[in-house]
Amino acid sequence: MRDHTPPRPDARLRVLYLLRHGQSTANAAGEFTGWTDVPLTSAGEAEATRAGQLLAEARELPDVVHTSVLRRTIRTAEIALAGIDRSWVPVRRSWRLNERHYGALTGRNKAEVRREAGDDQFTRWRRSFSDAPPAMAPSEAAELRADPRYRDLPPGTVPDTESLADVLARVLPYWADNVATDLRAGRTPLVVAHGNSLRALVMHLDKLRPNEVAALNIPTGMPLRYEFDERLLPLPPGGRYLDPHAADTAAATVAAEGR
Amino acid sequence: MRDHTPPRPDARLRVLYLLRHGQSTANAAGEFTGWTDVPLTSAGEAEATRAGQLLAEARELPDVVHTSVLRRTIRTAEIALAGIDRSWVPVRRSWRLNERHYGALTGRNKAEVRREAGDDQFTRWRRSFSDAPPAMAPSEAAELRADPRYRDLPPGTVPDTESLADVLARVLPYWADNVATDLRAGRTPLVVAHGNSLRALVMHLDKLRPNEVAALNIPTGMPLRYEFDERLLPLPPGGRYLDPHAADTAAATVAAEGR
Repeated sequence: MRDHTPPRPDARLRVLYLLRHGQSTANAAGEFTGWTDVPLTSAGEAEATRAGQLLAEARELPDVVHTSVLRRTIRTAEIALAGIDRSWVPVRRSWRLNERHYGALTGRNKAEVRREAGDDQFTRWRRSFSDAPPAMAPSEAAELRADPRYRDLPPGTVPDTESLADVLARVLPYWADNVATDLRAGRTPLVVAHGNSLRALVMHLDKLRPNEVAALNIPTGMPLRYEFDERLLPLPPGGRYLDPHAADTAAATVAAEGR
Repeated sequence: MRDHTPPRPDARLRVLYLLRHGQSTANAAGEFTGWTDVPLTSAGEAEATRAGQLLAEARELPDVVHTSVLRRTIRTAEIALAGIDRSWVPVRRSWRLNERHYGALTGRNKAEVRREAGDDQFTRWRRSFSDAPPAMAPSEAAELRADPRYRDLPPGTVPDTESLADVLARVLPYWADNVATDLRAGRTPLVVAHGNSLRALVMHLDKLRPNEVAALNIPTGMPLRYEFDERLLPLPPGGRYLDPHAADTAAATVAAEGR
């Protein structure tokens, strides 16, 4: 007896790529960047090119790209997609994928903040789930809200500081309404975002607890491939870097920042 | 007595920028390009940079960008938008904004085609409204339909040659459903497209007759600003180049192609 069951559209492989932007000028200077719109360094552009080369060797190619509204993710996506002849894929951008807002630490040198505030406070600001740095000065916060890319958002939307919990709360709606929708429609999204917006997303995907996400470091310019079952549970948890060895080395560098 | 009439949202200025991509390698070689996905030359990148500088001096800045799915418009848009710190604007891409499909002439040298086919036929192929060149060879046409950016389109959508009338027919739905909708919503779209998809659009905007559009030449890399009344009629007709003198010179060069 033949099986007349048609293939379930659900059984289709669901693949997602996460990519943290290449090195920015603020990364290179060891600064807390947050929502400051800094460009890539030439090393960062080279990382984006390398990310494109790794994607070119992958079995599934992205067919839609999501970025934050900051130029370091936008430029990284442009370079990586040009490298795989996919500049034509649909583009989605959202402030919800922005880096964590670092409040009063924005633009400060990490090593300097660590010396001033001490190891414990420094680690809490960088890696605690629910602690936020002190708020940004009101004049700077007002300037940020007046930026044309944010000024049409409803009042109270643009933060003046954020914990990782705050980032998670604003990233999740974007995941659910946009990226997960793409996956369910059979698309292969590339999400080019930031150290902490990606940590928040991975925390959700892998159901990490706050103490587990504290140890999670996402290196710049390294495509991280997630494969999902039909319920959008990742197989395996944690995904897999396209270049696992280089990603390990780079993640250790992120962990040591400010030291 | 005071006038209590609130300002009509309709009375708001509606501005559109049209921009033909910068010089491509095929432009530089004097070839019919059509849907072939050629990159910009470094002169073309410089034109895109200059277009950004002209936009930076304009009163209204684009807040949404539309491109074709060919890399010469995508890269032009990237460069021009980076120049005005507007890389973050929403991006829309469509094959409907692609260059006219030049059928069997695709990839052929213009001067050579002119010598072989004679002046009259050459001019008809380039500037007639309803004449299309002979169809592309079936094997090449099949290869084009299999391109990942086109393969999900309904059968019969990807052309194997096009007249300007065909281009108009496929550009108009994109204008009506996307660009005009942006304008009515109070946005300022930048449309980065091609010589003939822009000629078709301008023909529609300015209600040009076929003999009028024959004389219309749109230079590469020159932002053309249209302002509209509430019925989306252009004021003045024909729009206005941000650098009218340079645009005149460049349009004369386009008119003389193949000579």
